[in-house]
Order: sequence, then structure tokens, then C-alpha cells
Amino acid sequence: MTTGYVHGYDAIEARRLNDQARTLEALLHADTAYPAGATVLEAGCGVGAQTVALARTSPEARITAIDVSAGSLAAAERRVRESGATNVTFRQADLFVLPFADASFDHVFVCFVLEHLADPVAVLRALGRVLKPGGTITAIEGDHGTALFHPASDTADAAIAALVTLQRRAGGDALIGRRLYPLLVEAGFAAARVSPRMVYVDASRPELVEGFIRRTFTAMVAGVREEAIRAGLIDAGRFDAGIAALHRTAEPDGVFCYTFFKAVAVRPG
Amino acid sequence: MTTGYVHGYDAIEARRLNDQARTLEALLHADTAYPAGATVLEAGCGVGAQTVALARTSPEARITAIDVSAGSLAAAERRVRESGATNVTFRQADLFVLPFADASFDHVFVCFVLEHLADPVAVLRALGRVLKPGGTITAIEGDHGTALFHPASDTADAAIAALVTLQRRAGGDALIGRRLYPLLVEAGFAAARVSPRMVYVDASRPELVEGFIRRTFTAMVAGVREEAIRAGLIDAGRFDAGIAALHRTAEPDGVFCYTFFKAVAVRPG
Repeated sequence: MTTGYVHGYDAIEARRLNDQARTLEALLHADTAYPAGATVLEAGCGVGAQTVALARTSPEARITAIDVSAGSLAAAERRVRESGATNVTFRQADLFVLPFADASFDHVFVCFVLEHLADPVAVLRALGRVLKPGGTITAIEGDHGTALFHPASDTADAAIAALVTLQRRAGGDALIGRRLYPLLVEAGFAAARVSPRMVYVDASRPELVEGFIRRTFTAMVAGVREEAIRAGLIDAGRFDAGIAALHRTAEPDGVFCYTFFKAVAVRPG
Repeated sequence: MTTGYVHGYDAIEARRLNDQARTLEALLHADTAYPAGATVLEAGCGVGAQTVALARTSPEARITAIDVSAGSLAAAERRVRESGATNVTFRQADLFVLPFADASFDHVFVCFVLEHLADPVAVLRALGRVLKPGGTITAIEGDHGTALFHPASDTADAAIAALVTLQRRAGGDALIGRRLYPLLVEAGFAAARVSPRMVYVDASRPELVEGFIRRTFTAMVAGVREEAIRAGLIDAGRFDAGIAALHRTAEPDGVFCYTFFKAVAVRPG
């Protein structure tokens, strides 16, 4: 009987993953706090992963979360309700056809959305339209080109490159993080200020070893295995070796880094 | 006559470069402050670029700076004297044959040195020997694999890769920053803690555009042009295109990132 051990292990794992989620939440969102009564648009809330954090760091702001997918929106609504937050309103809407009057919101928040868009500048302009003059837009994106690890591995690089290519073919850009500044400037925002947020993981940070290296980044890359092989971007042996090499960085002498970029800019008044 | 303009431009440039040096100094060294009377060994001071910062942030520590090169040491001594610092003693010494008794120093500081060594662990062990139990070692290194820019460029990547290869052939490792944690653990240090320091540059940070992108990073890569071409690592056209692409990132819509890694660890007591 190993049930006791397994349960114990699961509890440790659950705590690690929760610690990891809180660590990432602090890294990305701790310095975003909208004042009481401020109206905030979260553009593209998906299943609400960031909405929960947003509602927690700005508990008295009035958040409107939109997404084009009714299914995602329902999941987000459930997730936010379960978190206990009561300051979020959900609405199904297309980012390209925002159902809001000009200058409707004090602030706009957009996280892990621009990477999926063929024309992020057009969407940023549309978001600027519904933002009040003097209001801020906050944009957060990853950039897979920042993934850096020890031991280094050509096959891991190749597996990540396959993911980047697939996202580009789907019209997105998995390397968009580094471009937030020029995108915001081109979309007409002022006073853009970008701050990079690196997740650095080695064995001294156990909450991130399992949670970030294995279950976040490596799991994300592994998720495109079939599609990448089918598209002829990489063969199965090389892809699997790349995934093994990423897992290898979670060993006691391994290191893994990934950088998110957070930008805040202002709609000119 | 353009003399007035040229002088004005030079003055602006000098100020920018000084601002850049101070920005980098703050990024790398601001959190290193040894107490009054503490004995600190700077291992491999070179021409004293970091020694000046060290003496400034720990004005009452007693710093011993060593280097194997008498010429570098003389330059470092001059530089430190000109900075006004009086708490540094210089001594010519080989890192592999340290002329100090066991447990001679309260702290050890080593910056931009390990990247040039074929066996950094052996040197770290040697430094551990002269460190008192409970004393700290601080190590700072860059990692050229962290260079990230917009617009992205294959030729810039190739020029950087040539530099990395040359450094490897010379016995060093230009990608050592990411490895500080396992190196310190392997050398027997305890409680190693690494913090990455990213230099992020876009047009909103003019002090770094010229000073860091052009005169620090790009100049460093450009410096190996002849050697890289002679070694057959890259042809002249491709190398020059890579350098042009790096300069391109200093334009108003460009972005450039580079990460240094700073580690602090303890000699077990």
C-alpha cells in the first residue's frame, strides 16, 4: 500500500503548484492596483486565469472582462466566483468590434492576448478608443526567445522553435514580449514604460522547479508535439529529446529562465 | 564651422555614457555593501572597472584587488586613485596560486572573471580556501545567450555565436551566467542565491541606447570581427550585416535586452 505516500506527495505537489501560481502572480501583477471605483476593461480574459489576480490586486475597482468565446467566458465567470471576487462583470465581445462608447474606461488591461493576434496594433488602437484620455493601458506578454537553460540543448531549442513557428503560422507571435514598446508607440500611446520580469529557477526555488519548468513551460511545448510533427517542423525523436532536455533542467544542477514583459502606457489627453 | 555642435554633441555623449555606467553600476553593485573593517578580496580586478564601484559601495571595507597582469593592475591602481578611493590595496597574483593563508578574508568578490577560465570550479574552490567560514562569495557574470533584440536578426545571432565560439576555443564560456548556481554548489559553497539583472533598453531610456547597445554590446561583438573571419566562423558580409542589425536595434522602434547574473553564496562554517 502506497496510498498514504501518494496522498502525501499529492498534497506537497498541490502546495508547490499553488506556491508557484502565487509567485508568478506576484511577479506579474503585484504592482497593478487600480483605485476604488476605477473602471477597468480586461480585454480577452480567456478562462479567467489573470482575471482572478486582477480582482485580487484591485478589489474595489469595477472590472469588465470580455472574451469572444462564450465557453471561456463561462469558465472565467465560474473561476472568479469561486475566488470570492464580486467586482467583475463579464461580457461576450470581439476585440475588433468593442461594444463600448469612446472613452468608456479609466484603464485597460490585456494579458497574454496580443501574442495570438495577427494585427496587435489594430487591437491596441481599438482599446485606446474606449480608454479615457489620461487613462492607462497595461499589457503583459511572454517571449519564448527568452527561454534559457542549463544544460543547454539543441533539441530543446528545436522543440521551442517548432512551437514558435506554429504560433506564427496561426497568425500570432510567441516572441512578442520584446516588441511591446514599439507596438504601443505605433498604436498611439504615450509614456510607454516596459519592465521585464524574469522567472529564474534553480534548485534553491523548489516551488518553481516542478511548477514552472515542468508543468508550465515544458508542458506547453510538449502540447504541440503532434501538430509540430504533422507539420514536418521536427521529427518525433528530436522533439522528444528536446522535451527530455527541458525536463533535465529541473534536476538539482539545472537552471531555467523565462522572461515576461509588462508595459504600461497612457492614452494622450 | 560645426565645432560648437560637435562639442555640444560630445558633451551630451559623455553625459550619456556616464549615465549608462552609473545605471549599470547600480544594477550590478548597489546591493553589495560590505561593512566597515571587513576584508574583501577582489579576484581578477583587470583594469579596475568593477574595483571603483566596489570601493564606492563599500567605502569602509578593506579591499585587496589582485590580478595576474602587472599592466592591468597598474591601470586599475591609477583608475582607483583617480576615483578618490583609498581603501584598495593591489597585489599581483595568480588566481590558481593565491598568496594568502586559509581563511584570510571576510568576503570574496569576483566579477567578469569566471567566463574566461577553463576550470571555474577549481578557481572557486581556491577562493573558498582563503574565505573565512561563514564568509560570502559574490560572483557576477554575463551570458551572451540572453542577448535579445527587436528587430530580430539571423545575422546578428550569427555574429554573436561567432564570439561565443571564439571564447570557448580560448577556454572560456560566454554563456556562463546561467551556470553560476551549479558552479558554486559544485565548488562547495552553501546557500547560493542567484538574482538575474536584465538591462532592458528602448527609446525611453536614452542613456542606455547609445551607451549599452552601441558602445558596450555591439562594440564588444564588433571587436572580434577579424578573428572570427580568420577562424572561418563567419564571412565578412554576414558578420558586417550582423553588426548593422545590432546597431539597428538602437533606432527609436528598437529594443535590446541583456542579462547579467549575480550570485551570493556562503563558505560553510
